[in-house]
Amino acid sequence: MSFLDHVTRLNRHDLRGFRPFAIGDAVVGHVRHALAERLKDFSAFQVTGERVLLSPALSEVEARTEAMAEVAETLVADGIVPKIRLEEYPVMARPGGSILMRINRAAVPHFGIIAFGVHLNGYVRRPDGPHLWIGRRSRTKNVAPGKLDNMVAGGMGDGLGPRETLIKECGEEAGMPPALARRAHPAGAITYTMELGPELAGDSRQEGLRRDVLYCYDLEVPADFTPVCQDGELEDFRLMPVAEAMRLVDTTDDFKFNVNLVIIDFLIRHGHLDPDHPDYLALVSGLHR
Amino acid sequence: MSFLDHVTRLNRHDLRGFRPFAIGDAVVGHVRHALAERLKDFSAFQVTGERVLLSPALSEVEARTEAMAEVAETLVADGIVPKIRLEEYPVMARPGGSILMRINRAAVPHFGIIAFGVHLNGYVRRPDGPHLWIGRRSRTKNVAPGKLDNMVAGGMGDGLGPRETLIKECGEEAGMPPALARRAHPAGAITYTMELGPELAGDSRQEGLRRDVLYCYDLEVPADFTPVCQDGELEDFRLMPVAEAMRLVDTTDDFKFNVNLVIIDFLIRHGHLDPDHPDYLALVSGLHR
Repeated sequence: MSFLDHVTRLNRHDLRGFRPFAIGDAVVGHVRHALAERLKDFSAFQVTGERVLLSPALSEVEARTEAMAEVAETLVADGIVPKIRLEEYPVMARPGGSILMRINRAAVPHFGIIAFGVHLNGYVRRPDGPHLWIGRRSRTKNVAPGKLDNMVAGGMGDGLGPRETLIKECGEEAGMPPALARRAHPAGAITYTMELGPELAGDSRQEGLRRDVLYCYDLEVPADFTPVCQDGELEDFRLMPVAEAMRLVDTTDDFKFNVNLVIIDFLIRHGHLDPDHPDYLALVSGLHR
Repeated sequence: MSFLDHVTRLNRHDLRGFRPFAIGDAVVGHVRHALAERLKDFSAFQVTGERVLLSPALSEVEARTEAMAEVAETLVADGIVPKIRLEEYPVMARPGGSILMRINRAAVPHFGIIAFGVHLNGYVRRPDGPHLWIGRRSRTKNVAPGKLDNMVAGGMGDGLGPRETLIKECGEEAGMPPALARRAHPAGAITYTMELGPELAGDSRQEGLRRDVLYCYDLEVPADFTPVCQDGELEDFRLMPVAEAMRLVDTTDDFKFNVNLVIIDFLIRHGHLDPDHPDYLALVSGLHR
């Protein structure tokens, strides 16, 4: 796939297949019509043909979170949600707003909730050109097993901000000491909205609307540092010339779907991809939808 | 004005006040309804209540360009367009597409044509922190006289691409030798659509719809290089701590309107503005509309 194919794939969606999911006046997500009909069976929701409203009787964060946890468990038993995961994600009316409730990570796309993550471009300047540290995902991962990945990446689920999440993940995924991780600097964010489903994502266990915000960080890594994965999420690391990563993104599907976008953003910001590329402006805007 | 105020200001527009301007099947701009009515007087256009179409009889780039030049001269005589300028801008169906015609720079916003420019963040790493080279615009400029500006900036009007335009402007505006200018690297692009008019832009001579694509370049400038303006467009230069430029953008209107966005983009990419800022995601997406 080309640079633009990756960006297009991650923004393919049709909201007509969904209805808004609201807490009070705030639309916090989108639910497929079929799931919306199923949610009529739960007292936690008020469902009309127009929208799914969390029951106004659930007025506290704690009560909402508990009710959603029960719903999620039932949906797992139904086989609609694949399995409960260990992380809970905050639900907000807008990024940075107050937390309205928490929802199990496994149910996030089913309700079309925005999810936040951090990705680190770890790079080394060498006499033969800049290199990126690239990991290979474990073959046992649920999502994108065996695909190439950034040096460090992770979801923000447990109440930590972007910076704290990054430092934690740098330790877990790359064995990086906090003093080095703190030298990473934020370099922007990419956003996308991707419709999931059996025919769409090529993975029948993924369903709903994946709305991601990925905070991108850059870190120039000392030549004598070698990442070592501590938590088994990555199989190994290789130091790859930027030109080779660029070629793989532009011509293959070897990287995890959203990592392609993180690398395209890096290539643009560092001038490896330049305005002479016919898709330059489409790529720049496509990373921020 | 705050960071977000600048971004919001440059994206304020209401297309209901305009009708599309088309060449063949391609919508290349937008024309205010009042101007559209006036254009009925010219054989170069076919005007309906729905749109302004360039006459299909004008099938060649050269003929279209000549017809538009005549129209522009009449509009100047009418006092609608302020004055003819020395540059002609290419008109394309989409960025990077083939050129459909050329139009005098002064008439570009009246027809809502996308304009392309280049802006250079010239910076120096010093022991006391990073500094940006900031120019002050001549008091005789038509647009934003006396305002602070990037080290180098210019419109792409005369058939040069972004890189060639940048190198040319680096010479004219900063007295920079081509060998140094060539070390600048592209770092992305920002886009905005701003409605102009007496009450909107605070400048009665500006009218229409300003749709700009600004290619942003970064250049780390050697400590012993001092820019000297060659063409009189900038009055002087100062080397300003990034933190001071950041404060001015966030709290004043001292910079030229669109330079605020170029600096915000620089601050985000280099990590001076971080995800803890409450407007971070609104800024990131607001720079790419």
